[in-house]
Amino acid sequence: MTNFRIDNLQYANWSEKIFRQMREGGIDAVHVTIAYHETFRETILQVERWNRYFEQFPDLIFQGFTAEDVQVARDTDRTAIFFGFQNPSPIEDDIGLVEVWHRLGARFMQLTYNNQSLLATGCYEEDDTGLTRMGHEVVAEMNRVGLVVDMSHSGERSTLEAIEYSTRPIAITHANPYSWHAALRNKSDTVLKALGQSGGMLGFSIYPHHLEGGSDCTLDSFCQMIIDTASQMGIDNIGIGTDLCQDQPDSVVEWMRVGRWTKGIDYGEGSASNAGFPPMPTWYQDNRHFNTIGDGLGRLGMTDVEVNKVMGGNWYRFYQNSFGPAR
Amino acid sequence: MTNFRIDNLQYANWSEKIFRQMREGGIDAVHVTIAYHETFRETILQVERWNRYFEQFPDLIFQGFTAEDVQVARDTDRTAIFFGFQNPSPIEDDIGLVEVWHRLGARFMQLTYNNQSLLATGCYEEDDTGLTRMGHEVVAEMNRVGLVVDMSHSGERSTLEAIEYSTRPIAITHANPYSWHAALRNKSDTVLKALGQSGGMLGFSIYPHHLEGGSDCTLDSFCQMIIDTASQMGIDNIGIGTDLCQDQPDSVVEWMRVGRWTKGIDYGEGSASNAGFPPMPTWYQDNRHFNTIGDGLGRLGMTDVEVNKVMGGNWYRFYQNSFGPAR
Repeated sequence: MTNFRIDNLQYANWSEKIFRQMREGGIDAVHVTIAYHETFRETILQVERWNRYFEQFPDLIFQGFTAEDVQVARDTDRTAIFFGFQNPSPIEDDIGLVEVWHRLGARFMQLTYNNQSLLATGCYEEDDTGLTRMGHEVVAEMNRVGLVVDMSHSGERSTLEAIEYSTRPIAITHANPYSWHAALRNKSDTVLKALGQSGGMLGFSIYPHHLEGGSDCTLDSFCQMIIDTASQMGIDNIGIGTDLCQDQPDSVVEWMRVGRWTKGIDYGEGSASNAGFPPMPTWYQDNRHFNTIGDGLGRLGMTDVEVNKVMGGNWYRFYQNSFGPAR
Repeated sequence: MTNFRIDNLQYANWSEKIFRQMREGGIDAVHVTIAYHETFRETILQVERWNRYFEQFPDLIFQGFTAEDVQVARDTDRTAIFFGFQNPSPIEDDIGLVEVWHRLGARFMQLTYNNQSLLATGCYEEDDTGLTRMGHEVVAEMNRVGLVVDMSHSGERSTLEAIEYSTRPIAITHANPYSWHAALRNKSDTVLKALGQSGGMLGFSIYPHHLEGGSDCTLDSFCQMIIDTASQMGIDNIGIGTDLCQDQPDSVVEWMRVGRWTKGIDYGEGSASNAGFPPMPTWYQDNRHFNTIGDGLGRLGMTDVEVNKVMGGNWYRFYQNSFGPAR
């Protein structure tokens, strides 16, 4: 079995430099966000942008559609890029767009991004009313075609209902346990238990607001948290989703938080005095540091087999079972 | 070699009845029009409509993407449906949409529909100024990804320039020789010669306005015209594109002709006294009559090998060479 390396969430300011760093880091696949608040047509523009990258840098990257493409990436020394949305805005109010997007390569879609959506409730709303009428329909359609439900930015009840209602395992692509760092974006023991028991996946985030100690979080603290979560959820249900937002200007984090839903300003996980992108920990500056995590896990006692599961093997298996039509 | 049966142009009022008639007629593949004047987003709605048909009638039809899907259709007793546009409106003013549409399965796109477009000149304009600046760029992009240039509704100069400029053979999916029936939509000997010499394909149309004698055209006259064109263009460069518009209300032919480009009325190939869909010849009412053409060709002396080329073998070979990326 190949020891795949998969980062299941990034939203960098893409460039040849970053694609080369993916190769230097030995990353076989990256799930990239192509929409935060964009409409269908606006998200198509992001597909077009990626198509240009694929045409310009065919020796570094190509679009991934299936788990087999991760093997192709490994065999050809490239990185397979998988598309995902952090908000259901690209399907607008039209369930038929789920299948269209799957054809175009979307493989993960969050039902909410912080706020209430047409489908479910975000993690920053006062009340979480769970899956909506349309939410149930869309989850079933996502299950049918093979578009993974991602609840990283959703509220507790919505997340539990999605785990329960979805006939296929779901993902929380980028978040950490609330018990380790009490952020609204991190996940309760109840959620983690239900996620693991249903065969779902948690991707550990290195976005500083999700870390104990923020930007000063140590590699050891992060790796011990992974080991503890493995004990809690099972070694087969965890992976990495760094949430690396490399080279992005602060205007991008404002777009993420505010979109077009308010004329005011919302600081999300930040604050007025700390409004921009927080600096990444020194031990994780870019894709070249990916294996630093695996090394850290090994130093704290994880076996090679376990490290390989966390660093990509589990996502690979999840891709195999999740990206095709329901059987 | 399988004797495939391919109808390379239809725009029917789709229904289970028609899909069953495709099966009764033994048709392995149909190229269906999904846009006349629709924008990108409007055409996506047509994709959604087809996705519903594929989901509802999986035993009758499925979406075709490659020539191999025609073999799959034959092997599984179904009809492969290939998408195409009669106008470049689905790419709007955005060359990046060419690749997006190819991913979604579009395999033919006309550069014009009767009128001047952003790309070239239609067959009803007074002056034909040939390929535009964007037209050259889009043809090159279509060549790159494997979206076939279709000049069925284009003017003479634009058609000749497309044949010349395209690095891959183009198609005229539904038209007949002007020498047989002098309609503006039919094609001159000059065009047919250039098309054949370049490895392009002509699909013979049974739309009555393209026929000698209109709705009263005889099967023998139609088949003799095919035999004569085979002598002129070569037996390997011709196929069928019936232009069957079965069960469509007359409001649809008005949409085809008028779209949103005029507040008035345009009768296209019809006239004020004959504004609607003309009745099809008695010998071609629906898909069940497809093999009638092959039988007619045989009676007039075509060999079985030649008949099989015209009835689908040539389109199959053309699909094999045209639908993938340029080598």
